[in-house]
Amino acid sequence: MIRIDRLKQASAEQKKPENWAVFNPANITYFTGFQGAAALLIPPQGECVLFVSGVNYQQAKAEVSGFNVELLERGESLMEKIVRRTLDEKLAVDTLAIDSWRALAKAVGGEEKLEPANHLIRGLREIKDEQEIKLIREACKIADIGVQAAAETIRTGITEKQIAAEAEYAMRRAGSDGVAFETIVSSGVCCAYPHGTSMEKTIQEGDFVTVDLGATYRFYRSDITRTFIVGKPTKKQKRIYETVQLAHQRAFETIKPHVLAREVDLAARGLIEDMGFGEFFVHNLGHGVGLEVHETPILSPDSKDLLEKGNVVTAEPGIYVPEFGGVRIEDTVLVTADGAEKLTSASYAP
Amino acid sequence: MIRIDRLKQASAEQKKPENWAVFNPANITYFTGFQGAAALLIPPQGECVLFVSGVNYQQAKAEVSGFNVELLERGESLMEKIVRRTLDEKLAVDTLAIDSWRALAKAVGGEEKLEPANHLIRGLREIKDEQEIKLIREACKIADIGVQAAAETIRTGITEKQIAAEAEYAMRRAGSDGVAFETIVSSGVCCAYPHGTSMEKTIQEGDFVTVDLGATYRFYRSDITRTFIVGKPTKKQKRIYETVQLAHQRAFETIKPHVLAREVDLAARGLIEDMGFGEFFVHNLGHGVGLEVHETPILSPDSKDLLEKGNVVTAEPGIYVPEFGGVRIEDTVLVTADGAEKLTSASYAP
Repeated sequence: MIRIDRLKQASAEQKKPENWAVFNPANITYFTGFQGAAALLIPPQGECVLFVSGVNYQQAKAEVSGFNVELLERGESLMEKIVRRTLDEKLAVDTLAIDSWRALAKAVGGEEKLEPANHLIRGLREIKDEQEIKLIREACKIADIGVQAAAETIRTGITEKQIAAEAEYAMRRAGSDGVAFETIVSSGVCCAYPHGTSMEKTIQEGDFVTVDLGATYRFYRSDITRTFIVGKPTKKQKRIYETVQLAHQRAFETIKPHVLAREVDLAARGLIEDMGFGEFFVHNLGHGVGLEVHETPILSPDSKDLLEKGNVVTAEPGIYVPEFGGVRIEDTVLVTADGAEKLTSASYAP
Repeated sequence: MIRIDRLKQASAEQKKPENWAVFNPANITYFTGFQGAAALLIPPQGECVLFVSGVNYQQAKAEVSGFNVELLERGESLMEKIVRRTLDEKLAVDTLAIDSWRALAKAVGGEEKLEPANHLIRGLREIKDEQEIKLIREACKIADIGVQAAAETIRTGITEKQIAAEAEYAMRRAGSDGVAFETIVSSGVCCAYPHGTSMEKTIQEGDFVTVDLGATYRFYRSDITRTFIVGKPTKKQKRIYETVQLAHQRAFETIKPHVLAREVDLAARGLIEDMGFGEFFVHNLGHGVGLEVHETPILSPDSKDLLEKGNVVTAEPGIYVPEFGGVRIEDTVLVTADGAEKLTSASYAP
């Protein structure tokens, strides 16, 4: 219950309600270790209640300990059930879509009794504990195996989709519970699209091939990108690749506790700008990774986040030249006591 | 632009604003054929505006036609940009999380100028057109291949995860763009959990093995479940299996236009109850499938939905006996002019 104690402590410190209703699935998994509940109620004192509908109720009863698992029966209103279990005081809520928010507001007797406070849970989830780091480390090892399989598969005449197939198959055999996000394999001029998806396109001699993938291991995720060159690179390809690799290295070297996330972004961005490719780095440098593939902190020029020991973030600079192609290099990186450690470690050889 | 015309027509008929801001990613894909935009603005007259941030801007410019693709620059507020392009009249919104909803309300000058109206888009998306049915049909064919690969892999001594690996690999090689949802392979007593996930568990002689999977093909999804018995089934296993298969057939035969979705659920549920397993059918009979794996209409005892030609829904009765095991059989089904057609068609042999 240490994570719940930390939430209560953070709530008290920031003068937010210590009475919580949690709806985001990843937040619920964070506190309970279980996936598939409808809501988690955390009262200021006493036992937390996990509301689970019939489809997952038996599994929750068997797998969850330390929580009162309550069946949400067919036809019952979740919001009214929550209100019946809540003391008549203000309720902190992580996040809800507007329709559900209004239903909850109606049930508690007015919106003024609710307070959106997801940033508090986000803040807790930003600092990974030892158990979380162990799982992310495993997800990263599996992702390395996926990249390795992709590297061994890439050749002229094969489709992007075949490369994705081999990478995902290798990850599954290495213990992946599934992909961390939709695998991206893009080639040739389509590498100029950071999220170009793997289609029937066939790899050609001289292509850049970008492979961006991740694995899930016991709910935790990894994220890695490598870019390959099929055949002998041109001077321009080499220059772009080396610039991205240098920017990636520069970013990695900048990562340590108490550094502003935007300084890490700017370290990579500044280098890319100095090399004359500034207009082609069209996205943020990185993001947190954990139970979700996109979490805080955000590493971008306008981020206000401060890096701390225990953050797990990506560093993924890229250069995308329209009608030419692009390069992205990405690792999942752990912020350590005095610097950073790459959790993904596949070869950078293009 | 026929889908946008239909939205305007539905808005007019239901006296909702014909001025729309669309945020849900699947809704945006539905109207534009593009994945990766931040928002879609549909004015009562004139060109629609698709807001895309830098990361996907070049791809949107290249792939989207008929829409004004507008770059959302770093540091720009999406909500303020939307408001600058909106006439000073009420704005229909599909759905937003509460924080974003409040930001948009502030930008437009008050919540009273916004109207959540996602049900209108949901209504359009429930009726699939010919192009959509073609893509779902392909996703279903691929899912059949996945189930076939699983069937050929299942044997004592192999892990659930290895079965998932072979099924997903076969789907990828058959053209899948990725899984439609996290593949479920569960065996033995864990089949009593409808969403039991595939772990390191090893298949044993006499096990039920449930395989629930789907493919994605050009953004459209499929959903199929088959349950296998390893070795010679016991009488109880046979009785449960045959009951679920009969309930599945009964549900399928009930599906046609102008039938209440709950009648289809009750056709299967009634049969399972009559066979004495009523308490063990712990979820709804089915749901719509399309750009998302869980859409409307919902086939449940308390559903108010009416089936129409062009709906694509699942029929997936199950019996889950705690500490014994369970069976689920599921197909993705198209509602036709005078009945229904199974789009998935893998063998039912247990």
